Amino acid sequence: MYRVDLNSDLGESFGRYTIGADDKIIPLITSANVACGYHASDPVVMEKTVEQARAAGIRLGAHPGFPDLMGFGRRNMNVSPAEAKAYTLYQLGALDAFCKAKGMEMQHVKPHGAMYNMAAKDYKLSKAICEAIFEYNKNLIVLALSGGELAKAAKDMGLRTAQEVFADRAYEEDGTLVDRRKDGAMITDENEAIARVIRMVKEKTVTAITGKDIPIEADSVCVHGDGAKALAFVEKIRETLAKESIQIVSLDQIV
Amino acid sequence: MYRVDLNSDLGESFGRYTIGADDKIIPLITSANVACGYHASDPVVMEKTVEQARAAGIRLGAHPGFPDLMGFGRRNMNVSPAEAKAYTLYQLGALDAFCKAKGMEMQHVKPHGAMYNMAAKDYKLSKAICEAIFEYNKNLIVLALSGGELAKAAKDMGLRTAQEVFADRAYEEDGTLVDRRKDGAMITDENEAIARVIRMVKEKTVTAITGKDIPIEADSVCVHGDGAKALAFVEKIRETLAKESIQIVSLDQIV
Amino acid sequence: MYRVDLNSDLGESFGRYTIGADDKIIPLITSANVACGYHASDPVVMEKTVEQARAAGIRLGAHPGFPDLMGFGRRNMNVSPAEAKAYTLYQLGALDAFCKAKGMEMQHVKPHGAMYNMAAKDYKLSKAICEAIFEYNKNLIVLALSGGELAKAAKDMGLRTAQEVFADRAYEEDGTLVDRRKDGAMITDENEAIARVIRMVKEKTVTAITGKDIPIEADSVCVHGDGAKALAFVEKIRETLAKESIQIVSLDQIV
Amino acid sequence: MYRVDLNSDLGESFGRYTIGADDKIIPLITSANVACGYHASDPVVMEKTVEQARAAGIRLGAHPGFPDLMGFGRRNMNVSPAEAKAYTLYQLGALDAFCKAKGMEMQHVKPHGAMYNMAAKDYKLSKAICEAIFEYNKNLIVLALSGGELAKAAKDMGLRTAQEVFADRAYEEDGTLVDRRKDGAMITDENEAIARVIRMVKEKTVTAITGKDIPIEADSVCVHGDGAKALAFVEKIRETLAKESIQIVSLDQIV
Repeated sequence: MYRVDLNSDLGESFGRYTIGADDKIIPLITSANVACGYHASDPVVMEKTVEQARAAGIRLGAHPGFPDLMGFGRRNMNVSPAEAKAYTLYQLGALDAFCKAKGMEMQHVKPHGAMYNMAAKDYKLSKAICEAIFEYNKNLIVLALSGGELAKAAKDMGLRTAQEVFADRAYEEDGTLVDRRKDGAMITDENEAIARVIRMVKEKTVTAITGKDIPIEADSVCVHGDGAKALAFVEKIRETLAKESIQIVSLDQIV
Repeated sequence: MYRVDLNSDLGESFGRYTIGADDKIIPLITSANVACGYHASDPVVMEKTVEQARAAGIRLGAHPGFPDLMGFGRRNMNVSPAEAKAYTLYQLGALDAFCKAKGMEMQHVKPHGAMYNMAAKDYKLSKAICEAIFEYNKNLIVLALSGGELAKAAKDMGLRTAQEVFADRAYEEDGTLVDRRKDGAMITDENEAIARVIRMVKEKTVTAITGKDIPIEADSVCVHGDGAKALAFVEKIRETLAKESIQIVSLDQIV
Repeated sequence: MYRVDLNSDLGESFGRYTIGADDKIIPLITSANVACGYHASDPVVMEKTVEQARAAGIRLGAHPGFPDLMGFGRRNMNVSPAEAKAYTLYQLGALDAFCKAKGMEMQHVKPHGAMYNMAAKDYKLSKAICEAIFEYNKNLIVLALSGGELAKAAKDMGLRTAQEVFADRAYEEDGTLVDRRKDGAMITDENEAIARVIRMVKEKTVTAITGKDIPIEADSVCVHGDGAKALAFVEKIRETLAKESIQIVSLDQIV
Repeated sequence: MYRVDLNSDLGESFGRYTIGADDKIIPLITSANVACGYHASDPVVMEKTVEQARAAGIRLGAHPGFPDLMGFGRRNMNVSPAEAKAYTLYQLGALDAFCKAKGMEMQHVKPHGAMYNMAAKDYKLSKAICEAIFEYNKNLIVLALSGGELAKAAKDMGLRTAQEVFADRAYEEDGTLVDRRKDGAMITDENEAIARVIRMVKEKTVTAITGKDIPIEADSVCVHGDGAKALAFVEKIRETLAKESIQIVSLDQIV
């Protein structure tokens, strides 16, 4: 029996600013990555988001990011491992407060944006992030780019590790994502994108941008809820997964 | 046997900015109120401060404040009860992450600055803060101005409540602190200040600025560690408490 | 010949967060109040907003607010007059940098949200704000609530002063706005709202919520561009003003 | 006649946090680089700092940095050229507001910390910063690392350019500063440091860490005021410059 999790970044609104259609994407996913107030979100938004996840019966995790609200946590910042560890601890605890208040348990941690991308290539940074997770709660699952340094560091530390793939992104031969600025970086054909997901789940293989098949682990697929088109695409993925007898379950039932 | 706790605000440094002499005041107190990153502090400072408290064997609590770093949380902000509750939850969780990572248990919560002063006079705001504490961890002690609305709200909610007094401040007949801008608001004579503390602890009485004796509960005395004079004053308080056979113990041994 | 200005708050987006339909409201107004990075906006948004105003040929002014991005500058903050003055200077200069870079001249200053509301009732705060404006550029027009303390302070200082009215808000007998939480605070009938604007401009009179007619100065009407309904309402105001032979011109042609 | 400017970073306090001994270093320098509220400072501090420079009769310039208060602007941030340009414009204008209010004229611009270091190696980033300066005020002097990309970009744009040297830092053969983490990066012998400054000013030459003499332009020497030792060192530099008949004058008298 094949299984896969669908995860999405949620709770990214801030103050009077609203982003995303959390209420629409929540019914379609199994794991929500909830922003923790550094790159996006604020305590009022976090409370609401945790409540939405609870009401919908889906699992949630922390989505810590860099302290760069102006850049939405998408700009590389040269933080030290000690800073990365402390920032992760801070955000894990902050989100967990709302989970506790609502009787929920945090399932996983997935770094956001530039922190995610930098960690995928930097073992030292990844180790610092994993130390924070390990010291906070050994049961948390680390959700990381398939084959990246964060996944390695998490496994080395004995943390449960889930590997993430992207339906709409091309891969280099070494398993990293093709830079968005390169031609062919995005898989624009929806059917092709979905076929790739199915193959990644069933065959643990994807065709790199060079044409070569490479191994890949697909515990979870990252999906987006911004806009009608994105939502329709998620529904299409869900239908195809069902047809292919791939069960959609939350991370903790996979790893 | 009389008992009293000595508490102080710590961990208020931020980034490259240093405030306070935490290492000097820590050996003199029993309960540290640790800033949580809203009015002061950052995750790196919080990690260091929790470690200092752990190493010294003193208890610590959260010192949540308004999101006003530029004003050090000392300016009244017209936040809603829902915002105050969410801000408190966020900061409790954030600090607790560092406690968990170091195997420590949070003892108490004391709001900071303007949040403390506003709560002392506003039952609704106090109730919101107490709801956050109650939902997060029913065992936390609320450290509040003696006789104020926060103390009332905490008791009404069934939370353990410790009442705080100030050695260097005058009191109105209703038990509130005399506004700093009024004549006589500060008790400048050290011996008088200490004598007042002893009387508050032993007789549960203090002389208001009007000359009338009023009842007061002194579970904890707030002391400061900024500067040689402040530290010398704390040592003098400690000596006098010892002479008067008043034991200096942490909050959790009192309430 | 009657004249009135239409002003609107613009440039309130921040980082990846978008608010408002600036491109749709700009063609309908004569004066844009541009956020300056404290309660909303960031430098990239400011550059874009100034360029939009320039391209459309409308006038613009600074819309300084409290340093409270999380609360969108809508929460009262107990800042000192010295702080209010410095915050205003900082924001005036910041916005003016983009005007200078594009060869534009700032026309006016209108405080935002809580700063606007507090200033309308507090002469001391208003004086501090006006000192900043006066010291920065004596030619700037102060756009203030009709009859409020800010308008008074601006006039006392010899600054050009424009008085603002609201189409959709009821007035108390003393000329202040009826608290939004009171019944009847909002004028929900569009025709009534527009009729009130016409009367305020032509007769310098409005009927207070008590039924009594009171004097009012209507140099400018504040309008909103959030949503299709708001935009349609502004178009309706424009049509009626045209029918009534009231010219819509920017502030500097009125005061 | 030889001439050199002495510059120092000032006005870096924030809210209740104090850094530096501005009052002590100001009498010893000719050009102050004033923080603008992004990596350090706030409007109240800026007002005070501009006033101190005015009272002492020294020149001042803007010291814009990255929006990273928690990291004091010392962490590389992957901002786009458009963002760097907008951030620079914002901060130039903000500081200039206080200068205008006090009848002072800004003399120069020197980027801070990570922005300074990144610009020294990145022509594109430097060009964006220089565009902001050029569009804001063509008369401003750009104060840049001697021989770096910012100096090049400023000259290419026709801006007045002053080149800065460091007394206590070793240089690579290509004129860049030796990384602080390398052995020999710091010149710890005070007499050697001062002798190097004299030679840089008089002979436009410095010995690189490899032992090879390289050309260098020393329009200004960066000095620090943090602590008694740093201040004594500046006084020693001043004495030696006087003995060597090198006049200490502000930047605008040199370039």
